[in-house]
Amino acid sequence: MAGLREGLPSEALLTDPDITASYRTDMASFCPAGDPAVVVVPRTVEQVQHVMRTASALRVPVVPQGARTGLSGAANATDGCVVLSLARMDRVLEIDPVNRIAVVEPGVVNATLSRTLAEQGLYYPPDPSSWEQCTIGGNIGTGSGGLCCVKYGVTAEYVLGLEVVLADGRLISTGRRTAKGVAGYDLTRLFVGSEGSLGIVVRAVLALRPKPNPALVLAAEFPSGAAACDAVCRIMESGLVPSLLELMDNTTIGAVNAMAQMGLPDSTQALLLAAFDTPDARDRLAEVGRLCLAAGATEVVPADDAAESEMLLQARRLSLVALETLGTTMIDDVCVPRARLGELIDGVAGIAERVGLTIGVCAHAGDGNTHPVVVFDADDPDQARRARESFDEIMALGLELGGTITGEHGVGVLKKEWLARELGPEVLELQRGIKRVFDPLNLLNPGKVF
Amino acid sequence: MAGLREGLPSEALLTDPDITASYRTDMASFCPAGDPAVVVVPRTVEQVQHVMRTASALRVPVVPQGARTGLSGAANATDGCVVLSLARMDRVLEIDPVNRIAVVEPGVVNATLSRTLAEQGLYYPPDPSSWEQCTIGGNIGTGSGGLCCVKYGVTAEYVLGLEVVLADGRLISTGRRTAKGVAGYDLTRLFVGSEGSLGIVVRAVLALRPKPNPALVLAAEFPSGAAACDAVCRIMESGLVPSLLELMDNTTIGAVNAMAQMGLPDSTQALLLAAFDTPDARDRLAEVGRLCLAAGATEVVPADDAAESEMLLQARRLSLVALETLGTTMIDDVCVPRARLGELIDGVAGIAERVGLTIGVCAHAGDGNTHPVVVFDADDPDQARRARESFDEIMALGLELGGTITGEHGVGVLKKEWLARELGPEVLELQRGIKRVFDPLNLLNPGKVF
Repeated sequence: MAGLREGLPSEALLTDPDITASYRTDMASFCPAGDPAVVVVPRTVEQVQHVMRTASALRVPVVPQGARTGLSGAANATDGCVVLSLARMDRVLEIDPVNRIAVVEPGVVNATLSRTLAEQGLYYPPDPSSWEQCTIGGNIGTGSGGLCCVKYGVTAEYVLGLEVVLADGRLISTGRRTAKGVAGYDLTRLFVGSEGSLGIVVRAVLALRPKPNPALVLAAEFPSGAAACDAVCRIMESGLVPSLLELMDNTTIGAVNAMAQMGLPDSTQALLLAAFDTPDARDRLAEVGRLCLAAGATEVVPADDAAESEMLLQARRLSLVALETLGTTMIDDVCVPRARLGELIDGVAGIAERVGLTIGVCAHAGDGNTHPVVVFDADDPDQARRARESFDEIMALGLELGGTITGEHGVGVLKKEWLARELGPEVLELQRGIKRVFDPLNLLNPGKVF
Repeated sequence: MAGLREGLPSEALLTDPDITASYRTDMASFCPAGDPAVVVVPRTVEQVQHVMRTASALRVPVVPQGARTGLSGAANATDGCVVLSLARMDRVLEIDPVNRIAVVEPGVVNATLSRTLAEQGLYYPPDPSSWEQCTIGGNIGTGSGGLCCVKYGVTAEYVLGLEVVLADGRLISTGRRTAKGVAGYDLTRLFVGSEGSLGIVVRAVLALRPKPNPALVLAAEFPSGAAACDAVCRIMESGLVPSLLELMDNTTIGAVNAMAQMGLPDSTQALLLAAFDTPDARDRLAEVGRLCLAAGATEVVPADDAAESEMLLQARRLSLVALETLGTTMIDDVCVPRARLGELIDGVAGIAERVGLTIGVCAHAGDGNTHPVVVFDADDPDQARRARESFDEIMALGLELGGTITGEHGVGVLKKEWLARELGPEVLELQRGIKRVFDPLNLLNPGKVF
């Protein structure tokens, strides 16, 4: 501790147990977590280097954190660790409209960056539902997705270069500031989604796009999840490129209505939201409407304008939070090829019935990325057991359907055992080999991912 | 050799020295190359596994090859190696319009895949100038770019998953078939651009897009490279998203005219080609035209239709080949932030004057990715020396301007020394560490990249 204190201003070091305890967990609060020995909130790259140098010398594990909105326990503290919160390194260092890049510190909040860019006609697409809280550093650590990915792709597509403090405190640069670049192995993409286990990202060069038109949204009601999924397939097969294609099931709709009086149609079994942000949005939405009706939609309602559209998107963004009001929740993140989405949705309904628990589903349907939310009473051990059982069955079903256990939330501690099942022993061995190259002493977020 | 023969059909094993000699080099023919002991042209994954198992047991280096259109010597044979040509593994295994993916073997030619996809209204964007010859496996190994990247990005953005034979013959799968996925480290992106040094790609899951409209092109003539680069900056700053933004200098224009009687305006100093593939292409081209005139264009000529547009693109695609008719060539591949493009172009002109050689420049201007082509007489040792000197000076200038030594052609043997300069010792050490994890015996394309 003394060594740590030497190189840091006093306000960067939090040791009051009441305060450090508040840094124990991310949003996956029922995953195992420990008590940090200390929390460091640096403001400079040099301070991060000092922390890593000291931790390396003392062989103390370091758990990096952003806004702790993660859903897999990747940012959970372990007993005696140093929590390294990057939240105060939150400057936007550069916005360059000609090169369409931004250079940011890791603690910048996603929505803050988006609003700052919008003022200059620019756009950083990845938009997790937690965008008002989550940080770019956390997004990079997790490889976050969001609602716009069906058109714009995920975080990995937007990180051009990084500055990273290694486990031993050395600072490296990866990647580039240019549109193209293939000089050596792509370390930048290796850091994206590595959940803080390979190094501490202290600076990122992000690729930007011109700001699109405000999205126009259409809502379509379906008598079943399967019919809504059929519509998704028809839309994607037709060659349309919606900027958003989202699904909420009946449980989710009810929860959102109860929480925010959104007036969503609560008798419908599945609500599909489609959006376009192109000049021809109205025409494209009309095509989507026709495809939805052909797939069995009972009602198709285009939003009148951007404001009404934004309200529908707001309802969708509230889904996870609204489902959390129903009880303790386990939030899954299975992604399947979109043609298998109907099978997944039906399968989840079957699992819910068998275990006798409510499982609400909202989904980035255009990506085949679902968030089944298992609702249970944490004080009832039998319910908790059945919740975990159903949570695992959903991942097994996702793998069976050719999918992945995590589309955008990451592995953390929640899905460690399942990672081995998805990757197999050979790939896991290679990943562990890479971890050893970057962090031979296993100090960076140990016990996560693998 | 006997061990190799046992597991392979006889037609898969080429041993005639006249034939094996034709597999010595890729298109960077003046880079060092050796004589392969044998060339294997497998048709199945099992045959590739057999080759790697045998090579591992005998500690014989293996050099993977596609169409050998590479420009950095990455596919050059070394003395006594096994050349593993993936050219006959050329099947398109699956095209899935709902999930917008294709599954292909590595030997599929880029243009063949593109045409097959176009029949189903689908599009695989990366389009290197060599697209009529180059293979998808080679594109993945190099991390290829092309002409469309300014809108659609590079190969790394389109590879979702891989099957890879490791150095010891084991077969692994990486990545996914889904739109999203963050299960463990991104090994897929690590293989992209690794130049055959980490494993043999035997199957790839590629992300597709809906086929866009045929591009409409505008040609703008400029009195200087700097004015053309200024136009590029104005276009990108304005928020326009051209599907192509290419530059040809006076030398390149002359060479293309001489070779193909294209009738390009050969008195102009720099020709800028801009294209759009959206429904509003004509309007967008008109905006580009205005921005070009504001930047000093002397003439702005929109193509009348898709056919005339295609002819202009054809002229651009011929640039490298045309410049090669002027003498022996060294083709550089420096990519800079696009705002620095003018400085690079001016700098190259200065270098050409100082060394007394012709250096033609064509560029993916929208990406800041230039291909200065140094023309010299290989029989004149002094010219050869000056050519290499200027080639190196161009890379030094690129790094000075915040760019990279290779935007899309890779490192191979041509730029090994320069890689160390770009990455620095720490990053190089990490990259070598990764290489050791995948290929502890250093059998996969040894002596390349590092």
